[in-house]
Formats: sequence, C-alpha cells, structure tokens
Amino acid sequence: MRINGKHYRSVWVDEDGWAVRIFDQTKLPWALEVLRLEDDAAVAHAIRAMQVRGAPLIGAVAAYGVALALRRDPSTANLDACVERLGQTRPTAVNLAWALGRMRAALHNLPPSERVAAAYAEAAAMADDDAETCRRLGAHGLPLLQEIARAKPAGEAVNVLTHCNAGWLATVDWGTALSPIYQAHDAGLPVHVWVDETRPRNQGAALTAWELGRHGVPHTVVADNAGGHLMQRGLVDICIVGTDRVARNGDVANKIGTYLKALAARDNGVPFWVAMPHSTFDAGVADGVAGIPIEERAAEEVTELTGRTADGRLETVRVAAEGSPAANPSFDVTPARLVSGLVTERGRCGASEAALLGLYPEKA
Amino acid sequence: MRINGKHYRSVWVDEDGWAVRIFDQTKLPWALEVLRLEDDAAVAHAIRAMQVRGAPLIGAVAAYGVALALRRDPSTANLDACVERLGQTRPTAVNLAWALGRMRAALHNLPPSERVAAAYAEAAAMADDDAETCRRLGAHGLPLLQEIARAKPAGEAVNVLTHCNAGWLATVDWGTALSPIYQAHDAGLPVHVWVDETRPRNQGAALTAWELGRHGVPHTVVADNAGGHLMQRGLVDICIVGTDRVARNGDVANKIGTYLKALAARDNGVPFWVAMPHSTFDAGVADGVAGIPIEERAAEEVTELTGRTADGRLETVRVAAEGSPAANPSFDVTPARLVSGLVTERGRCGASEAALLGLYPEKA
Repeated sequence: MRINGKHYRSVWVDEDGWAVRIFDQTKLPWALEVLRLEDDAAVAHAIRAMQVRGAPLIGAVAAYGVALALRRDPSTANLDACVERLGQTRPTAVNLAWALGRMRAALHNLPPSERVAAAYAEAAAMADDDAETCRRLGAHGLPLLQEIARAKPAGEAVNVLTHCNAGWLATVDWGTALSPIYQAHDAGLPVHVWVDETRPRNQGAALTAWELGRHGVPHTVVADNAGGHLMQRGLVDICIVGTDRVARNGDVANKIGTYLKALAARDNGVPFWVAMPHSTFDAGVADGVAGIPIEERAAEEVTELTGRTADGRLETVRVAAEGSPAANPSFDVTPARLVSGLVTERGRCGASEAALLGLYPEKA
Repeated sequence: MRINGKHYRSVWVDEDGWAVRIFDQTKLPWALEVLRLEDDAAVAHAIRAMQVRGAPLIGAVAAYGVALALRRDPSTANLDACVERLGQTRPTAVNLAWALGRMRAALHNLPPSERVAAAYAEAAAMADDDAETCRRLGAHGLPLLQEIARAKPAGEAVNVLTHCNAGWLATVDWGTALSPIYQAHDAGLPVHVWVDETRPRNQGAALTAWELGRHGVPHTVVADNAGGHLMQRGLVDICIVGTDRVARNGDVANKIGTYLKALAARDNGVPFWVAMPHSTFDAGVADGVAGIPIEERAAEEVTELTGRTADGRLETVRVAAEGSPAANPSFDVTPARLVSGLVTERGRCGASEAALLGLYPEKA
C-alpha cells in the first residue's frame, strides 16, 4: 500500500523488535497517527475500540497480541487466557478465532522458553501470508474488471461500487475488495469507485475514500441510500465488497447494508462479487442467514458522529433527536443466491458449498 | 399534530392576518423556532433552503407565497412571475407545480383588486384540504395496521419501518405515511416505528424521531443500512413511506434509499405501502423510472453534517476524507412492481395505471 508514494503496511513491529505499531484508524481520515502497543491489553483495546478493524487485520494484530502476552508470561495458562480474552473482542470476525487458533496450535506444544520468539515468528508469517493472500486475491479479481473494460469504449472508466472499507486499512496490505481495483489502476485500466459512506461508522467516506485518494484512484462518495438509484441508471458496472465471514452455503456476512446493495445489484443485472481470503471462509457454519451471530454495537454510533470542523477541530455531534433510542446491528447476511461469486487467493468460485469446498477441500 | 400536548399546524397566518408563519425545520430537532415570512422571496428561500420540506407542505407554503407576492403587486404580470419563480425552487415535488397551478387558475380571471383576499382564501382552503386529505389518508391506512395487530399476540406492537419524514412536519397536519401510525397510536393500538436515519439530510433521525417522540409514539432510530437485516430477521411487519411523485404506471419517486427498502421488503415478504395524497399523483408522467427527473443536490450535504455537541453548540463537521468528491442524488424511483399498494385519501389501491385511474378518474 502507498500513502502519497511511500510504502506501508497496516501493522508492523517497531524498531526495538518487540512493540507493535498500527495506525489509529479512529483518527483517520483526519490524522495519520501511529500507535505503539506494548501489551495484550492494549491490543484488545485497539480491536474493541476499532483502532484496527477489518477481519484480516484484526487477525494479524491479535496474533501479535499473543506474542506480547507471552513476553510477560509464557506459561500455558497465560497462552490460553490471552487467546480467550482476545477472542472476545469482536464476535463476528471469524478471522480472529482462526488467527488465535493458529497461534495457539503453533505455540502450545513448545516449551515456554521458546514461545516468545516463536510467537513473533508466527505472527510475522501470518502478516506476510495475509499480504500475499490479498495480492493474489487482487490478481484473481483483476480479470473481472478487465472484461468489463473490454466491453466499453476505450478509455471509459469501469465503475465499481463498494461498501465499507475492505482496502489495505482492513488487511496487512493490498486489501481484499480494493486489491483488484488497485491492481487495475496500477496496470493503467481506467477505474472509478462509488464509495458508500457506510453509516453508522462511515468507514467508506472516511477510510475507503482516504486510501483511494492517497493512492490516486478516482472515486466519488455517496450516501448508502444512493446505490440502488445508481445501479438503476446504469452507473455501476460491478459491486465488489469484502466480508467478515462466509458460511459453508455461501451466505456472506459483511458490514450492515451490504445485503441491500446485493438486492439492488440483482434487480439491475449488476454482478455482485465478494472478496474472500481463505481465513474468512467458515465451513463450520452451515447456513449463514440462520447461523452467523450479528454484533449489536452501541446506540451512540448511530445517534452521534465525529468529524472535523472547518477550522480543524474534531467534534462529536448528536444527529438524532434527543431522547430517541437507536439500534445498531453492525453486520447483515447476504444470501448466497444474490452473490455472483467469490474472489479468493486461489481463484474465483460460485457462492455454494460445492464450489467453496472445491477451492478449499481441506475445510470439507 | 401535537407538540407535548399542544395542537399546531406546520404553516399558519400570523395574528396580523397577512404574514406567514412556519417552523424552521433546518433548526429541528435542536430548537423549535418559528419563522415569519413577509414576502414571496422569503417563501422561495424557505423552500429552497428546506426550512419547509415535504411535498404537501411545500405546496401549501408556496400558495401563501403567491398571496404575499400579490400584496406587493396584484398585476397579472406579477402573478405569472411569482408562480414561475416559486415553481423553480424544487424540481422533484409535483405538488409545488400543482399548488401553484391551482392558485393561478383561481386568481387569473379576477380583477387585480380582488386577488389578494382571494389568494389568502385559496391558500387557506388548500391548507385545510391538505389537513383533511391527510386525516382521511390515515383513516384508510389504519386498517392495514389493525389487520397486522389482529394476527399477533394481544399487546404485541406492530413494527412499522419508514424512511425520511412523511409526518406532520411534511404536511399541514397529520402527515402522510405517519398519519395511520398516529391514528393507530391514538386509538390504543400498540405500534413501534423503525425510523431510517435518512442520509444525507437525516430527516428520519432528526424530524421523524422528533415528531414521533413529541407525540409519544415508541420508535427506534436505525442507520439506513439496517432495514434489510431487520426485515430478514422478521422485525418489520410493514413498510410505509411517503412520496414526492407517483407516475401514471405506479412508479414511486421518494427520498433516496426508498427503492432499497422496497427491494428488501419484496425479498422478505414484507408489505410495502406508499402514502399518496391526490396532489402527488402525476398522471402526466407515463413511466416513473424513465420520466421523473431526479434532483441532484449539493455534495456538501453528503460530506458535511450538522449536529449538536454535548455542551449544546450546533457544529457542522466534515465526515468524508478531505479532497474526496461526493455525488448527491436526492430521490430514487421505486418500480411499481415492488409496491404493495397506495394509501390515499380516497382509499387504498394497487400501484398500476388501472387502479390509480380507478381512484382518480378525473386525471385520466
């Protein structure tokens, strides 16, 4: 990923060789602040407070959280306890449980004295894996955009609609849904992104718009309400979104509002693709609509909003009438029947058990 | 309509018998400020700046604007000029053209000396008509809610989802979509309203939540993104929305995002009803999706937002990344095939040319 030409990752180990560095994503897009995390409590707070968010990045940062916990106490009891504590920070993201499970499996049978070094090595390997997974995923998504471009007059932009932030800020590098877009842009294919604002936390308007802007990709922010209209008017060629969990039957959990865009895509014949790294496929949930738990977050995320005033102050303002309660389901589940297909690091496949297990036979 | 027990209308003539009073809806829900409009330029500004909004209320206030213009100069040239100017303030609302046309027809053949008194009388009649239209519309919508209540365990609330504000703030009294809800509540039927926030201008979170709260109707504000999930989980019994224009074929123009909710309702077997006073039926547009112009409003409505800080100041904050452009289509068109039916002051009907012209043969 590039910020004004300079390469970064979303999580890295500090120069001292042990503390963990992240961008504080709650400060974006207003300030690019780097946080230094020195223990697993700080990691748990960063995940819970959404200083890091996005299923793949949460997994990688949680893995480093295990390493930090073991620095303090490498005992098996502490390994189990920190895996348990970190696992409770966000219930919807399956990557979190997957990443912690991988750390525990790699460390459990080692003598405590070897665990710290092994934990950092395993977390680093997971971060590298995630970056490579996202790069490959983008390479497999790129042909979808090239095919649309070929059917258009030369030079006319491919219009992609995306929801929430599934860019490099949500992963270690490249992003998932945005990876094909970055690769298309870098290859000289004209691409334009409709960026859903993504209320209530505005990850689209704040984060996706920011990272596309820093990379130089043309884009336009729209209210979440606008996508149906844009598709009806032929202004969207393809939707590509990320996911927090894909069930065995191909149902897709993602940021609240994704389901509405999938319905609009179906109604207007617009392809609706989901970018899914392997860690997000949860073959243990047979039916996504019935079986994926949906995180209910604080009502204040709906009733209040933070932004920057014209003179540069950050202010939190109430947007709902005083005294009115709010509900805040944070994810929804898009039924597999509305999904054109999944883009993965192993290739593309349909949203069905047979197709998913065809790509991931080890999860059968 | 009641505010903490006291009866109001949304537009009225001041005690001096000529100036026009409205609530400044851009100040709601933070302050209940009454504006005094003394000429047609003030009326045009009030409409354009959305100090008054909602198709029926815009029509009534514009009618008073004609009366104010004629006070200054009752000539035919000025009548034609003010009708022209006021008609250009909001392009989507068909009521505006309808109300101004009615004023012009009533006044054109009168001698100039009689026009001012006649204009006030005609505007007052239009306001009374609107209030009565909305009351009747609510009475015809009430059975939809009663029927749902009968199929539920006694005392369990009927869950209604609505989008934007089609309450009494959008009309002279009662509202359109909210009129059946107020009548149900007043009749002792337990009802609960899911209030879509309605980005970018937040008319749901700010206005609908406010007026439901003042009247004592239980409600919960949700992000626009949440409606599909709520319907999928069986938490919505019926959707009722207002409309800015209904085409001859039953296609419904309403606030951006309405179409997405109609798609979700269809996908989940939830009835989707549109509250339409007669003035909103535009039989002159054969096909709504193809023929209704969509107002594109300022990008700042998407990228900035005004709310109240914890210590009571109103602040406008930017919510989108710096430098990112935004688009702001303000309405969308829901195809008739997704509409269960229309609730009107003459009864309910299907969303089709035959059914609409059956209720409104004079528009054939």
